[in-house]
Amino acid sequence: MEYRFSSMASRLKPPSVRDRLKLSQGKDVISFADEWPAEELFPAHAVREAAGRVIAGGAGALHGGAAEGYAPLRVQLCGRMAARQMAATPEQMIVTAGSQQAIDLLVSVLAEPGDAVLVEKPTSSARLQLFALRGLKAIEAESDEQGIVPEDAERLILEHRPKLMYASPTFGSPTGRVWSLERRTKLLALCKHYQIPIIEDDPYGDLVFEPNERLPTLFALEGGAERGTVFYASAFSGTVAPPLRAGWAIGDSGVIRMAAKMKQAAGQHSSAFDQQILSRLLENFDLDAHIRQIAGACGERMLEMHEQLLRQGLRDVSWQKPKGGLFLWLELPDGLDGEALLRLSIRKGVSFVPGGQFYAQHPRRNCIRLNFACHAGERTKLGVERLAEAIGEFTARS
Amino acid sequence: MEYRFSSMASRLKPPSVRDRLKLSQGKDVISFADEWPAEELFPAHAVREAAGRVIAGGAGALHGGAAEGYAPLRVQLCGRMAARQMAATPEQMIVTAGSQQAIDLLVSVLAEPGDAVLVEKPTSSARLQLFALRGLKAIEAESDEQGIVPEDAERLILEHRPKLMYASPTFGSPTGRVWSLERRTKLLALCKHYQIPIIEDDPYGDLVFEPNERLPTLFALEGGAERGTVFYASAFSGTVAPPLRAGWAIGDSGVIRMAAKMKQAAGQHSSAFDQQILSRLLENFDLDAHIRQIAGACGERMLEMHEQLLRQGLRDVSWQKPKGGLFLWLELPDGLDGEALLRLSIRKGVSFVPGGQFYAQHPRRNCIRLNFACHAGERTKLGVERLAEAIGEFTARS
Repeated sequence: MEYRFSSMASRLKPPSVRDRLKLSQGKDVISFADEWPAEELFPAHAVREAAGRVIAGGAGALHGGAAEGYAPLRVQLCGRMAARQMAATPEQMIVTAGSQQAIDLLVSVLAEPGDAVLVEKPTSSARLQLFALRGLKAIEAESDEQGIVPEDAERLILEHRPKLMYASPTFGSPTGRVWSLERRTKLLALCKHYQIPIIEDDPYGDLVFEPNERLPTLFALEGGAERGTVFYASAFSGTVAPPLRAGWAIGDSGVIRMAAKMKQAAGQHSSAFDQQILSRLLENFDLDAHIRQIAGACGERMLEMHEQLLRQGLRDVSWQKPKGGLFLWLELPDGLDGEALLRLSIRKGVSFVPGGQFYAQHPRRNCIRLNFACHAGERTKLGVERLAEAIGEFTARS
Repeated sequence: MEYRFSSMASRLKPPSVRDRLKLSQGKDVISFADEWPAEELFPAHAVREAAGRVIAGGAGALHGGAAEGYAPLRVQLCGRMAARQMAATPEQMIVTAGSQQAIDLLVSVLAEPGDAVLVEKPTSSARLQLFALRGLKAIEAESDEQGIVPEDAERLILEHRPKLMYASPTFGSPTGRVWSLERRTKLLALCKHYQIPIIEDDPYGDLVFEPNERLPTLFALEGGAERGTVFYASAFSGTVAPPLRAGWAIGDSGVIRMAAKMKQAAGQHSSAFDQQILSRLLENFDLDAHIRQIAGACGERMLEMHEQLLRQGLRDVSWQKPKGGLFLWLELPDGLDGEALLRLSIRKGVSFVPGGQFYAQHPRRNCIRLNFACHAGERTKLGVERLAEAIGEFTARS
């Protein structure tokens, strides 16, 4: 039989960096392309201990979970949110299989195929792919070191009447930028004015190098979930352990309830085991101390990569030192295409994500994203050397 | 802010039986409305033991999983499929968070919103809700004790040109019927002829009371996954443990690969822990012996409920004794509405699923579905007595 794929299936993107790397399996490729910190930074021992306690706990471990999530975990997560000035009740919280699923559910509840969603330029490639999958048209607003430029956002709102704004104002992929307080306030006011719900995506917010400099989230700035403008999503994928993919979202209880119903109707159960393990972990483990430690390690690794890059004396290559998160965003010489550079780099034994993937409409191809938290020491040094060699071959040619 | 919900959200159904039961919390309501056997029938001890082994196994337990599922588990599941004459390679297999998700992914890959899908009359309410959520129009073909009537199916194929056929030919909800071999063969030939992929849903197939009478699945009848007509989905939810919601689907590798990409793009990770626990369980536990045992218990409970119903001497109430699965499908006197009966029954302390929910287009309201495997002995007796009392009040009125 010949199959006819749906238009949703046809919107799935061509092979990613990861797929391309499969082709080079067996070769020593140092990956700066990952989405998370290195595995050795996760609290494997504490997670295993928590899992052991869940199992020892007996029959309860086998209970199925509600679509909105394991109730005690939701209470604990609300406590963590409150500690960051984000007040939400358990009815305003849903636990998901990660932040991608949280955002998918919110988007599916609040927007139709064909609707526009306002995004930053550039923004997360995984979220862009999700929006494309759901038939949404991502409209990109200009952004600078302070975040989205409000005047450009307003112009696009008037032109495209977007149903949603998607924002990742703290160390968002790929740039690792932090939106200034002024911009946060302005963008929030703008969306309130035009009645556009904001999905605030904060997967890396905890990975802050200078905890004293933390800015309030958009959700905290607004100050209330019920009938609010902001829906906030985060996850433990970057701080606890990628296989415990628990994420969560908070916001208006009516919307959250609808998201839970949609999750249930689509059979997207979150693992009851995983949620109980997390709940035990939050009870018995100083997660905040661990997060400070992993964030500190990420900060050191950023400096390492920064210094290795400086040492290479790359001409016409620039970047900003981020204040948190996982990513360095490199601007390459004009005309150097990140995709072409990646193909050569994989042959040299290093990988990264080419910048074009982070744009909805008008890609800047001479940028690349490096994850600095996957490697340390000699591996970082070697990877940067290989990258510099690849860049050098290109610039020598032109 | 006022939110505008998407049309997908607005297609989510009104409160289910479970929601209505929440209102009677605290009261002793005997539920015949559940989707699974009673918890005490699951191998809780073996699952906990397997989980313990996974954790003791060390760091590997923390590895994230691929979208298509944990590779060793896929190999094991292929072995189990082969033992039932369903040959599939690991490339033709995807592990999901249960059969609902497996069917959602297949449907999303193979059909568009607005497309028609051919279903049995009546059929699973959860799957009907899923089709509605995805904007599919379910067209119901007449069915009798042998399964879907091929002539009616062909008439509807010519009239509606459905993109898919959804079939649950073995103990499917709500009737618990088994399609005859002749009907299986005819329906398969029909769909091959008109090039309509079949999604064969088999969540209860293992719960067979007379294992010697098992008929081949549609997938087995066709005899090959690649470019095949049939996609087969099943799950362990009814035999191992509801919280380990692992399900799986097999079929053409191109379609399965697309389903995995869609799962990944939508952030629907299956728990790596759960999959490893299942894999260990399949290694170290005689699952088939356990399944025979749980199926035997379900058979006994079916007989218990059957006899309790007979004992009530209900006039104009009829049912067939199923050969497997979990459900008795009761036809009530003409004009007795299952929804109205449910409201009264909950007050009497018993619940079930009213039949109207299992129809896509033309509900027969004088039917109800009873799960016979949730209770035994005195509880079953008491529940049936309460039900008979409720029915009696209605029939006395008319």
